[in-house]
Amino acid sequence: MKIYGDMRSGNCYKLKLVCELLSLDYQWLDVDILAGEAATPEFKQKNPNAKIPLLELDDGRLLSESNAIINYLAAGSSLIPTDNYQLALVQQWQFFEQYSHEPFIAVARFIAKFLGLPDDRREDFESKQAGGHKALAIMEMQLSKTSFLVGEQMSTADIALYAYTHVAHEGGFELAGYPAVTNWLKRIEAQPGYVPMV
Amino acid sequence: MKIYGDMRSGNCYKLKLVCELLSLDYQWLDVDILAGEAATPEFKQKNPNAKIPLLELDDGRLLSESNAIINYLAAGSSLIPTDNYQLALVQQWQFFEQYSHEPFIAVARFIAKFLGLPDDRREDFESKQAGGHKALAIMEMQLSKTSFLVGEQMSTADIALYAYTHVAHEGGFELAGYPAVTNWLKRIEAQPGYVPMV
Repeated sequence: MKIYGDMRSGNCYKLKLVCELLSLDYQWLDVDILAGEAATPEFKQKNPNAKIPLLELDDGRLLSESNAIINYLAAGSSLIPTDNYQLALVQQWQFFEQYSHEPFIAVARFIAKFLGLPDDRREDFESKQAGGHKALAIMEMQLSKTSFLVGEQMSTADIALYAYTHVAHEGGFELAGYPAVTNWLKRIEAQPGYVPMV
Repeated sequence: MKIYGDMRSGNCYKLKLVCELLSLDYQWLDVDILAGEAATPEFKQKNPNAKIPLLELDDGRLLSESNAIINYLAAGSSLIPTDNYQLALVQQWQFFEQYSHEPFIAVARFIAKFLGLPDDRREDFESKQAGGHKALAIMEMQLSKTSFLVGEQMSTADIALYAYTHVAHEGGFELAGYPAVTNWLKRIEAQPGYVPMV
């Protein structure tokens, strides 16, 4: 199978991390998001939403949306609970990630790290800080009670939220005030097969 | 089970529609989102993210995030595919909904219908139009090929995207240019058990 992605993107890194943790074979095809390579007519034939990551199976079938892809890749593994309610909690945290975490933390990081925090984006950058800290505080509450987001077993919910949380400082979010989150990052980084984002 | 929701919210309506289509028993508890009832200390004990809808099971377990909830409620029904790839496509469309559709169409509708399109929000409202039309165009491409978003069988992906698409005009999005979307809305409204949003 082929993964189209940009390694600077946390959403793309989720797929790489799952593949490495589960020892899945894949071919990584670089798509330079900053150079607009996800928005070419050729790429939009594969994903009309002009976004990465994108998974292409050997038979040509396609799948977009990072969290949908990692749940598909991890099907049948220990990263996907078998209990219906636990499975629903995985999705709960992943939708939380896409709506209440990524639009603040990943976008602030993008403005600061990749755009260089230009003056005309500073107000936008600042506007992301409160929402990002709200998301981190919600994670801290859960991770003060359980080792991983959905209990004592690591799941794709943890992968989804690890991706941008562990680089949150690049978006101006210091994690010193979130000790349970910080310990959870270390637990994930200690997993066999873990690879850094670079 | 109890559903905490506000019937003016498309995200809450998704739950009601699934319960009615599947003849599930539930108690609806009104939470007035405009009056801030999701942000009270009492409600935040149940959902620290201060959002609705929220599901509370009879044993007190809680579940948030509308799409996670409808997938949980519909588990084992015809609304959830059994094939892994089809299941992944359901999630793909639901993450698309939360990231690339709802933040444009639902937010524009909120500004226009519930805030009355005040002058200081007009620029914000206008900024949502391009993204909303991009989302509708992507749906149109898929629905020109298949009766429902994930093939010929209705799924919770359709419920997720029906919720705000069928009231998109309230956010300034005319659907006349999207005939496949318009016909899909009618197919959903013809399902046994369908209930309108109001």
